[in-house]
Amino acid sequence: MPADEIPGFWAVVPAGGAGTRLWPLSRSGSPKFLHDLTGSGRSLLEQTRDRLAPIVGDRLVVVTGTAHRDAVRRQLHELPEDGVIAEPSARDSMAAIGLAAAFLEQRGAEVMGSFAADHVIADDAVFASAVADAVAAARDGWLVTIGIEPTFASSAFGYIHQGDTLDGHPGVRTVVEFVEKPSVPVAEEYLATGSYRWNAGMFVVRPSVLLDLLAEQDPEFAANLRAIAAEPDRLPELWEKLPRIAIDHAIAEPAAAAGKVATVPGAFGWDDVGDFDSLAGLLGEQEDVTVLGDDALAQVIGSSGIVVPGSGRMVAVVGLDDVVVVDTPDALLVTTRARAQEVKNIVSALKDQGRTDLT
Amino acid sequence: MPADEIPGFWAVVPAGGAGTRLWPLSRSGSPKFLHDLTGSGRSLLEQTRDRLAPIVGDRLVVVTGTAHRDAVRRQLHELPEDGVIAEPSARDSMAAIGLAAAFLEQRGAEVMGSFAADHVIADDAVFASAVADAVAAARDGWLVTIGIEPTFASSAFGYIHQGDTLDGHPGVRTVVEFVEKPSVPVAEEYLATGSYRWNAGMFVVRPSVLLDLLAEQDPEFAANLRAIAAEPDRLPELWEKLPRIAIDHAIAEPAAAAGKVATVPGAFGWDDVGDFDSLAGLLGEQEDVTVLGDDALAQVIGSSGIVVPGSGRMVAVVGLDDVVVVDTPDALLVTTRARAQEVKNIVSALKDQGRTDLT
Repeated sequence: MPADEIPGFWAVVPAGGAGTRLWPLSRSGSPKFLHDLTGSGRSLLEQTRDRLAPIVGDRLVVVTGTAHRDAVRRQLHELPEDGVIAEPSARDSMAAIGLAAAFLEQRGAEVMGSFAADHVIADDAVFASAVADAVAAARDGWLVTIGIEPTFASSAFGYIHQGDTLDGHPGVRTVVEFVEKPSVPVAEEYLATGSYRWNAGMFVVRPSVLLDLLAEQDPEFAANLRAIAAEPDRLPELWEKLPRIAIDHAIAEPAAAAGKVATVPGAFGWDDVGDFDSLAGLLGEQEDVTVLGDDALAQVIGSSGIVVPGSGRMVAVVGLDDVVVVDTPDALLVTTRARAQEVKNIVSALKDQGRTDLT
Repeated sequence: MPADEIPGFWAVVPAGGAGTRLWPLSRSGSPKFLHDLTGSGRSLLEQTRDRLAPIVGDRLVVVTGTAHRDAVRRQLHELPEDGVIAEPSARDSMAAIGLAAAFLEQRGAEVMGSFAADHVIADDAVFASAVADAVAAARDGWLVTIGIEPTFASSAFGYIHQGDTLDGHPGVRTVVEFVEKPSVPVAEEYLATGSYRWNAGMFVVRPSVLLDLLAEQDPEFAANLRAIAAEPDRLPELWEKLPRIAIDHAIAEPAAAAGKVATVPGAFGWDDVGDFDSLAGLLGEQEDVTVLGDDALAQVIGSSGIVVPGSGRMVAVVGLDDVVVVDTPDALLVTTRARAQEVKNIVSALKDQGRTDLT
């Protein structure tokens, strides 16, 4: 069943982050949202657009770095000129989403929702239904976040502590507070209560509500964003004055404390594809090797994990469990799912050695 | 102390065998003896020549396949025209060494010794001393084998069961029998006796004694070898008539049963570099990763084993113990030292798939 389009609702897609734990596939020059990491034939960015299109039609804005503007346009060629907002430099999520909010406020958008370009969602229909509930609450002035049903006690995500059901919105709960990434034992306690959700950074809100919430915390920040939207030529000048802060800290946490945040519990199968362990879990069976790419380029004996033959060369793997082998034309990674987080340390080491050609 | 040259002594170097367990470094078109597997800057073949040169001077003959004749000449450019014997096809070690013996008999060589082109020896001086003892016994008519002091209960080698000391040759023992590759428990029993040595296929013997021993078992085989030596033009015709049999079965075992074989115990550090486990043990410390090649092309975190960055690409390894990573321009191998023997199954699978370009 295709989702219904939601009138007056705009999607904002922040497309940033190098995804260093997915090196050597993901590079600063070619970050993960540009890659087909699921073997679907579409990049994560294209999948995000495809997921949102039924809900928003052509009301979609991508916020990305200047370096990636052309690549984004190549993948989403239907985007109009003002469908891509290029950040002169990376200034964290408040500036990125806030700038989109300011432009959308200017254009008279009723409600906006921010959805990262590099997440994977299994059930688009359930996702669309959650978004519809979130938009309905956002129209009533709430800052609404979609809370992901946790599938295990992860220490890699922040959590949303949900409260009571919102009056008039049966599928929506108030947010008691946002909590930072917990330890695994604390996460286990969260899961046992049934009242905690993963914070996936999906915020649905009226653009003016978002900017007004920001203005309560940092009036100059909000004023500068609105000034850029009014006079886009001032972007280069004003952008560098914007604080580097995550939207969670800038507005979501103080707004939750003030009782202005709601959440829609979402159970649509979500993954942020944070590292190769996550990717392997997303794609494959535990007992086998999943080949992301051309099967004919992998020769596997008695192994499990994930193999990415990405250079055209033959990749042979013998007798390794939960292995991660990623072959690209200029760099090769061999690790295990359990150690996949440490791949970022390889990237750091290469940067320290001046090998920016590889990072 | 440089070894003394041994007058009238010729070295025969059989250079054959694809070394499939060292794939993708070793290929049928480029077998392991042509490779620098120890990071010494010299191939195994060149190291073999360097080890023998002080003993034999220029009295060295390489027996290799037609396909490798030019590569052997490129590496050992000092060899005269008749210093390389090219086999029209692979017919096992009796034909290869027997043909060299027939040519050397023709040329009046007093004693010959066969030493594989793809073995590694740690102490050349101790090796030379063992060879000198073997040559002395061979001059008295014995078929002499150099028996390697076992360093562990290997099931990968045949063993030499040694008997009493030879009269007049204090460093030489009689051979009771040759035994096939044993199980590990049997090998442990062998080691406990102190009377067993690894059979490394090093035979030192008068050429005519070798051919006469063969004639006792298979007169036609010996006659055909001598016919080729007398009329080299008949090589293509007669070669295909020669049986495919190992020298151990053809003459060493029956000669031992007849009390005609002696052995010189050798403790010079020997390795046949049979697979990547053997190579890793030969090159490195157990706790670390050994890089065979350019260190700057390996980024390693919390791992041990062996990494061969052979394509110019960066190789990153994170969190794997006893790992084997071999990177070449057209194929990549990832395995563990414990499973390194199974690499030959990858080669078989590739051949079955018609990928002779990779094998």
